[in-house]
Amino acid sequence: MIAALDDTHDPALTSWVASANEPATDFPIQNLPFGRFRRPGDSDWRIGVAIGDQVLGLKQAGLLDHDDITRILKLTPAARRTLRHLISRSLAADAPPASRVHEALIAQSAVELGLPCPIRDYTDFYTGIHHALSVGRLFRPDNPLLPNYKWVPIGYHGRASSIQVSPGRFRRPLGQQGGAADKAPSFGPSARLDYELELGLIVGQPNDPGEPIPMASAEEHLFGVVLLNDWSARDIQAWEYQPLGPFLAKNFATTISPWIVTMEALAPFRRPFTRPAGDPAPLPYLDSADNRERGVIEIALEVHLQTGAMRDAGHAGDLLSRSSYADAYWTAAQLVTHHTCNGCNLDSGDLLGTGTLSGPQPAQGGSLLELTAGGRQALTLSDGRQHTFLEDGDTVILRARCERAGRRTIGFGECRGSVLPPPTLPG
Amino acid sequence: MIAALDDTHDPALTSWVASANEPATDFPIQNLPFGRFRRPGDSDWRIGVAIGDQVLGLKQAGLLDHDDITRILKLTPAARRTLRHLISRSLAADAPPASRVHEALIAQSAVELGLPCPIRDYTDFYTGIHHALSVGRLFRPDNPLLPNYKWVPIGYHGRASSIQVSPGRFRRPLGQQGGAADKAPSFGPSARLDYELELGLIVGQPNDPGEPIPMASAEEHLFGVVLLNDWSARDIQAWEYQPLGPFLAKNFATTISPWIVTMEALAPFRRPFTRPAGDPAPLPYLDSADNRERGVIEIALEVHLQTGAMRDAGHAGDLLSRSSYADAYWTAAQLVTHHTCNGCNLDSGDLLGTGTLSGPQPAQGGSLLELTAGGRQALTLSDGRQHTFLEDGDTVILRARCERAGRRTIGFGECRGSVLPPPTLPG
Repeated sequence: MIAALDDTHDPALTSWVASANEPATDFPIQNLPFGRFRRPGDSDWRIGVAIGDQVLGLKQAGLLDHDDITRILKLTPAARRTLRHLISRSLAADAPPASRVHEALIAQSAVELGLPCPIRDYTDFYTGIHHALSVGRLFRPDNPLLPNYKWVPIGYHGRASSIQVSPGRFRRPLGQQGGAADKAPSFGPSARLDYELELGLIVGQPNDPGEPIPMASAEEHLFGVVLLNDWSARDIQAWEYQPLGPFLAKNFATTISPWIVTMEALAPFRRPFTRPAGDPAPLPYLDSADNRERGVIEIALEVHLQTGAMRDAGHAGDLLSRSSYADAYWTAAQLVTHHTCNGCNLDSGDLLGTGTLSGPQPAQGGSLLELTAGGRQALTLSDGRQHTFLEDGDTVILRARCERAGRRTIGFGECRGSVLPPPTLPG
Repeated sequence: MIAALDDTHDPALTSWVASANEPATDFPIQNLPFGRFRRPGDSDWRIGVAIGDQVLGLKQAGLLDHDDITRILKLTPAARRTLRHLISRSLAADAPPASRVHEALIAQSAVELGLPCPIRDYTDFYTGIHHALSVGRLFRPDNPLLPNYKWVPIGYHGRASSIQVSPGRFRRPLGQQGGAADKAPSFGPSARLDYELELGLIVGQPNDPGEPIPMASAEEHLFGVVLLNDWSARDIQAWEYQPLGPFLAKNFATTISPWIVTMEALAPFRRPFTRPAGDPAPLPYLDSADNRERGVIEIALEVHLQTGAMRDAGHAGDLLSRSSYADAYWTAAQLVTHHTCNGCNLDSGDLLGTGTLSGPQPAQGGSLLELTAGGRQALTLSDGRQHTFLEDGDTVILRARCERAGRRTIGFGECRGSVLPPPTLPG
């Protein structure tokens, strides 16, 4: 079952936390995303919910008796809904004064935000068909979309240890760059470093090994969604990826946003799942009435680039592209069911990347590989500079919002990551 | 530095635990592999060392003050060596009677053995060149060994959640099986279920993100070696693996053996690393004097198959093949350095699979895919039955030993896994 609408989604609802009522905030009372924070000097993470420019500490507010986010991930959807209602009521403008726990609020700017949960296994899918097509054209001009694409939600396992929370930073990776036959590859810093605009689904309730999750209950195993930047070294990728897929081209760093926007908060932004005319219907195990009626989530996405020179000049960065999660070829439920159809067990805190979410237009590419046609067409930035792949000092910022007429807009905060110079070559 | 030989390797050394002195045991006093066990009714795992047919509980023996295997993995090589000496001395035949802690010994048959450590990230490499060649011929007849193979230690990320300890069992996976163009794939139980004979390297000390591990210190980050069965559904794999590599074909189950044979125990079985004439030398970042002189570990490997009918008849199973880890194209140190050359951080308890370890002869294939020429040539088992891919009720047993003239033979125990019937199709 996909989460239903209830009174926590009422667009007229306001909060006694004034900043939550500002039109531009990502975190009105209709959102209530989960994360982990600590105050300066604290060693342990606390569970918090973003409200306007503040964080509500759930234990401090008396809404939880622990700070173990994994226990929250494991809640049944019904228990999660109950907790959402409690949080919503305690933050609502009409909450009785006694329940306005001001001492449980702290400014987001005053805390450190951690990974929103410990990440167990990390899987990255490939649901962005426009990305698959345009990258396919670069890697395999004669065969851009492989025959399995419209049948199989293609995915692969990624690296959990190098997942970092926004604001993140990482050293430019070293690696092998190969090419022509009969020529030794070189080894050195990647010269074609890229970002990938993705969303990440956070798994809530686990399944047992050998127990596939059918489509009808797939969404009940999802807790929520974060922004995800799947940093990619294109030169390393091109040389290493056959026959077993990307490895060192991706596993040096992945940055995610600190707030998990819950499936409940996303409920007002669903729409039917359809396939373009002529495309095959999903196989029966990837189909359900619920998925056809409300399988798609409309999330508007943006990528911004702030170069080192822009930062020095006090410039927040250029908008590089916009796209939408609604253009993904496979829904969240289909990813869960496909992932488990062979008996693979998902665990609470697993991260399922959507793959790069590009739009149908060339300007909607979710990576520099697409926006620069493989590095051949430089972008001209607002300061007049030419730019192809990422340079040391560059910062990439991902943002996302859900907007719909008659609904309160909610956002994801930002996913920010910066490129540091490479390490020296190992001996 | 590769672990050196010392008096714990003395082939004349015997133990007061009588079963450790029997010629056929895998666990003489020269081995001392680490694992985790619990007695019936216990909830927590204890750290143990296998000695003959017994387990020595290290905390009960007063050799450790905790039962946290991850703390053992994080020890420096020098501290690990000290602990090995202490264990060896307390088990030696000439140990003073007061240090013979009989009450810390328990029969292996009386305890449950757990995963030897919590597995963090799992990476599977592809170092078996004979496997790569023979599988490459089946998947890409015109292009069996890709141009990167002799330059890049090819690897990909695997699934950690579905790693199970021997004796393991799992349900036959369901999945998509595709094929001809313009034809819808089918969905159902895999009809080409296979095993893969591998070893798994367990990471000891971690590295920081952005800090590559040079070859000179790569082995210091390895704790030891286990047997690993990388169960594979060939029909699912053939349809899904392009362009991002194996996913559901592999992630339903991976079985490992319960005892980690340490790098120290393997020290007597090293030999020089060389490349066949005409093959390229490793790039400088994958080369070191230590690796050239002692990079290779000689481990003899065996696969046995016990069908359900054999089990019913009290037959232990047929030997299917033998091969050697010495035939791998890349050494353990090269895997660690390559994995981290881009700044990827390894963590204590990470598992690095070697990839399928086939020998140069067709009869030395480390999988049924190889031994049956892709299922076209059935094996004739000792009971006269024909066999291609795995059937429900089959049990696969992997074994390994290190033998060298003038050295005490050590073994790995066994890695045993059984195939259960598939689940019913999800709604």
